[in-house]
Amino acid sequence: MTFDQLETPVPLVDLDVMARNLDAMQAYATSHALSLRPHTKTHKSVFVGGEQMRRGAAGLTCATPHEATVMQQVTDDVLVAYPVIGHAKLERLFLLRDDVALRVQLDSAHAIDELAAAAVRHDRAVAVTVEFDAGMHRVGVPSLDDAIALARHVRANPPLEFSGIAFYPGHIREPVTSQDAALERLRHKVVEAVEAFTQAGLPPQVVSGGSTPTMWRSHEITGVTEIRPGTYVYNDRTTAEIGVCRWADCAFTVLATVVSTSVPGQAVIDAGAKALGREPIRGATGEGWGALVDRPEVTVSRMSEEHGILDLSGSDWRPQVGEQVRVVPNHVCIVTHLNDVIFGVRGGEVVTSWPVDARGRGYGQLIGV
Amino acid sequence: MTFDQLETPVPLVDLDVMARNLDAMQAYATSHALSLRPHTKTHKSVFVGGEQMRRGAAGLTCATPHEATVMQQVTDDVLVAYPVIGHAKLERLFLLRDDVALRVQLDSAHAIDELAAAAVRHDRAVAVTVEFDAGMHRVGVPSLDDAIALARHVRANPPLEFSGIAFYPGHIREPVTSQDAALERLRHKVVEAVEAFTQAGLPPQVVSGGSTPTMWRSHEITGVTEIRPGTYVYNDRTTAEIGVCRWADCAFTVLATVVSTSVPGQAVIDAGAKALGREPIRGATGEGWGALVDRPEVTVSRMSEEHGILDLSGSDWRPQVGEQVRVVPNHVCIVTHLNDVIFGVRGGEVVTSWPVDARGRGYGQLIGV
Repeated sequence: MTFDQLETPVPLVDLDVMARNLDAMQAYATSHALSLRPHTKTHKSVFVGGEQMRRGAAGLTCATPHEATVMQQVTDDVLVAYPVIGHAKLERLFLLRDDVALRVQLDSAHAIDELAAAAVRHDRAVAVTVEFDAGMHRVGVPSLDDAIALARHVRANPPLEFSGIAFYPGHIREPVTSQDAALERLRHKVVEAVEAFTQAGLPPQVVSGGSTPTMWRSHEITGVTEIRPGTYVYNDRTTAEIGVCRWADCAFTVLATVVSTSVPGQAVIDAGAKALGREPIRGATGEGWGALVDRPEVTVSRMSEEHGILDLSGSDWRPQVGEQVRVVPNHVCIVTHLNDVIFGVRGGEVVTSWPVDARGRGYGQLIGV
Repeated sequence: MTFDQLETPVPLVDLDVMARNLDAMQAYATSHALSLRPHTKTHKSVFVGGEQMRRGAAGLTCATPHEATVMQQVTDDVLVAYPVIGHAKLERLFLLRDDVALRVQLDSAHAIDELAAAAVRHDRAVAVTVEFDAGMHRVGVPSLDDAIALARHVRANPPLEFSGIAFYPGHIREPVTSQDAALERLRHKVVEAVEAFTQAGLPPQVVSGGSTPTMWRSHEITGVTEIRPGTYVYNDRTTAEIGVCRWADCAFTVLATVVSTSVPGQAVIDAGAKALGREPIRGATGEGWGALVDRPEVTVSRMSEEHGILDLSGSDWRPQVGEQVRVVPNHVCIVTHLNDVIFGVRGGEVVTSWPVDARGRGYGQLIGV
């Protein structure tokens, strides 16, 4: 099948580039004796999760119970790296097969109490990692004393089991070559946390951390045992701009068609915010909402829901209506979430496809209109 | 069913508010003898499209052939207000039942040629409206002479039928009370276009235009015969901020749960960019990515994929972990596109639900992994 047989906009993944990305991250983790637990939020796909497990991942990371119940098709070890709050979400979490090892990452006594009550109800052990704030100020307990108190609260609530600590250094957004000072501060924080927990009689078995901008430097953060990268499987314009990957490592593009050249100096494609997401590049200076894979100087400078405006001012290329282009999106995890099907390509051929199994919220049955 | 039985984040629509919005727009169109052809991109729902038709809509507007093939369940008169380019999209377009009146809005000779070839192949009449640029500089022919040439090109290519002209004044983003000058310029442009086409022997039967910010003033644009508003059915924070609706007319909210209050001065909800979209307010000054329906002073000031940070600095309200909140999103059309199911509520009760039938791209069958 050729690209021009596809109805655009449509997401394409270069299979060889994806395989190379998967191999490289597993090799990195193995060489530094780090446990690799890829975050599936990027692909939401049983097929891709299976490829990660097959290469040696220790288990998979999910953001929601829905993602976890989908990913149990290819793993028996799941981390939900998000507090599971509310009856409906907890009930879905405990739909996981009995033989799936389950860990939840959380940061409050309330989350522990709800999880413990559900674990008792379902008579099931659940490992818990306590998240501390490493500087992002999103979730995570700011004070180590409070984090230790939460760990004790977990211990006091079997069948919950305290298994360690977790953090997400999402505040480090500098390009990979400018992270030295921020990484040194982070290293200090993590060492301090491990020491404090150990002195409190709660030596963390698991120290789970890392982020996409810091992913190739995770081994420099002393004490970390596990990393949870997501974006590396596909990469995107942001990971390329901050130097975490090369442009040639961007496996994911949105195939689009030029639909109008009526207004001089621009071309309009059929990929807008509903196909590319409206995510700015963070940590680097790139303008626009995506760039053409084979002409990175041409960016999507404006968008409506179904229109993307290609800024041609930096190029002498003038596309015709009907021409197809491939856009590397700024933030691929959002684009996955917009689609139901991904097409796998090799060379100029469409050779396979797979569903975005964990897209949506799995709300289940409708109540009658 | 009560709200706390739902797994969050989840979209809710207040049925009474939606019904009032539907009634008001139909009453406006009827009272000004404008043909109402609601844009279904906002709801992508057969149920809501049916409610629009039942109240007197002349037909429905779609952005894609996929949306059109879904909406033919409730209408026999469809406008695809977007150039249909490429074999796959054209083939889907001609899947429409024979008894569905079809119109396509376009702006290039290439689009006419492709559509004409497909229409011949399928032996089917297709009405065409030629889009001219009314000042937005997105799509639409800037010069009226060129637009007239396109109309002649349509006439020369049966079974295409020239039926009129169209425009989208998306550049008018001022609040409704500050639009006088922009509307006067637009009125002048439309009058000029109608006169030019008429003098050229191509009197436009249809003059299709209007936008959400200008929707209640469409009758001031002399010559307009048809309006295609979308957002009015649900409304959102943007339409409220620019004065096109009242806050109480926002029918659509995202129900979310507070999952963390670890970091002082904020609360974190489980609705982030994957639930709310990352759409700024345009045409007004509101900060953030959404606001609480019952506390509009509390906004979602930052987001990650599954985290929304509530800025509590303008409020003395301090929510607890586990508490549910309802967020009015900035741009509801994007939020619809993120969801598969909408829940209809009345008072504090969930009383119905409906699928987002035309979500996704309808790629159809997978080719084997």
